[in-house]
Amino acid sequence: MFREKIKVLDCTIRDGGLINNHAFDLRFVREVYRALSEANVDYMEIGYKNSKRLFSAKEFGKWKFCDDEDIKKVTEGIESRTKISVMVDVDRVDIDDVKPREESPVSMVRVASYVKDIDKAIFLVNRFAEKGYETTVNIMAISRALENELTEALEQLEKECKADVIYIVDSFGALYQETTEFLIKKAKSIIKSKEIGIHAHNNQQLAFSNTIEAVIHNANFVDGTVYGLGRAAGNCPLELILGFLKNPKFDIRPVLDLISKEFIPLREKIEWGYIIPYAITGILDEHPRAAMALRGSNRKESYREFYESLVGESEQ
Amino acid sequence: MFREKIKVLDCTIRDGGLINNHAFDLRFVREVYRALSEANVDYMEIGYKNSKRLFSAKEFGKWKFCDDEDIKKVTEGIESRTKISVMVDVDRVDIDDVKPREESPVSMVRVASYVKDIDKAIFLVNRFAEKGYETTVNIMAISRALENELTEALEQLEKECKADVIYIVDSFGALYQETTEFLIKKAKSIIKSKEIGIHAHNNQQLAFSNTIEAVIHNANFVDGTVYGLGRAAGNCPLELILGFLKNPKFDIRPVLDLISKEFIPLREKIEWGYIIPYAITGILDEHPRAAMALRGSNRKESYREFYESLVGESEQ
Repeated sequence: MFREKIKVLDCTIRDGGLINNHAFDLRFVREVYRALSEANVDYMEIGYKNSKRLFSAKEFGKWKFCDDEDIKKVTEGIESRTKISVMVDVDRVDIDDVKPREESPVSMVRVASYVKDIDKAIFLVNRFAEKGYETTVNIMAISRALENELTEALEQLEKECKADVIYIVDSFGALYQETTEFLIKKAKSIIKSKEIGIHAHNNQQLAFSNTIEAVIHNANFVDGTVYGLGRAAGNCPLELILGFLKNPKFDIRPVLDLISKEFIPLREKIEWGYIIPYAITGILDEHPRAAMALRGSNRKESYREFYESLVGESEQ
Repeated sequence: MFREKIKVLDCTIRDGGLINNHAFDLRFVREVYRALSEANVDYMEIGYKNSKRLFSAKEFGKWKFCDDEDIKKVTEGIESRTKISVMVDVDRVDIDDVKPREESPVSMVRVASYVKDIDKAIFLVNRFAEKGYETTVNIMAISRALENELTEALEQLEKECKADVIYIVDSFGALYQETTEFLIKKAKSIIKSKEIGIHAHNNQQLAFSNTIEAVIHNANFVDGTVYGLGRAAGNCPLELILGFLKNPKFDIRPVLDLISKEFIPLREKIEWGYIIPYAITGILDEHPRAAMALRGSNRKESYREFYESLVGESEQ
């Protein structure tokens, strides 16, 4: 698959930060940035831009706040065409924390939103667009969106929103390729003035195939993470995306080195990937939080009990 | 997806046996059989039927030979509707080792063959069909088959072969869903009198999605293994198949228990799954043997070097 318009965004540090409270050390983040730059990956998302009024800088690492000064310490001295992205959650950002584009090392701001918060997301993203940033709206938990509400949200995004890209986000790792095809086609049928993107979670080992499916149906922004690092089951492995896309500008080798040297040792310290409780929440289209709690308990391998706890109660 | 005709074959012990020379002990194999029976999986493939003239019973475990007496020790005392399958390789079986169906605990014999050996496979499988078995031909390394040769093989299978099912086997884990769709549609266009099956390897985390893709295009036999156990990157995880298929006869819970109790400890002893050298051979459409050798060496995490060794030489 070679389509020059396809852009690859690596969100290893941002999504991976959800496992360790965004506490990756500077050396590690620089190694990731160096490898992505050598691989010619288009964007690196380095963390969240959260308000320090809402979250304590003592409790969380740097990449929950992404101060410009911290980002500059990552990028300085490394030759790169990889742009820096930060993510913003609705209701958790101070707009004034985001300086005008020309004063910042950041190129792209992505706003994560549930369908129900789409008005707030549009308000926010338009402010960031006015500040000069490339922008996206990432529609989370798409597998739970009611179709009429999703339609309305997409129509609003097309009409009122200055974002460059609208992302379909499979937060629960619940989509199969048929559903992905349906959602991407639906988005493309309404969103005419912007690109479509895909961010997939790997609960059912479908993050990569759902990403391919989205690309087949003309999504042009794809998210990946090195070795699939990310919350719970993790994300679409970047190395597989680079192996699939035939754009000669990409070089998989720096990413292979990075996995050898940094991610194999890291996996001994923090957990992510194909783990049965995450597969179960994916199959059942549930948020992984119950599974994450299980993995932190002394019942971590009690899969049947966990499954029963999720399917046992009627919600009538 | 609920289509009553879809049959699930578990080949955990057979494909997993390629990692440990078929040396699973009787207790373990009985636990697998018990769980598959409780889950109502249609078939359990227990090993290979290889000639003891060609392979030493001292070097290999029981499941390389699958004597009827050993199979009976697995099944006795366990209530089950799960049928037993054995696999046969072209040129490695003594036909007379396979007794008539009514004298044997085996229900199905599957013949694995490359396209080039299809005449031998047809000869063999017709003998087993005459002995009363359900039979399949599994076309290996399908990602490397030349289209004209594959067409001819499929035409021969349709005309000359008594097998009930023809399997597409992605030995190298190299197929994407587009290729899977192409191959299943091609097989369906030629094979009218038999079912089509899919056996996928997981090098690129695509075994499950390729299995779904095959089912979408009307393959009715799907292979899986518990927790994806199998040579190198392993196979399509059975638990994900059961989560996807909505046939109410299947029960995922015994399989979850089996993974908790048996497969989590087993994974500490033998290696399979998503491991970068296997991803690399999948991306490059190569047999995993070089990657398996690497994993047995002291260079096991030297991914770039391994990648270079596979792409470095022109074959002009």
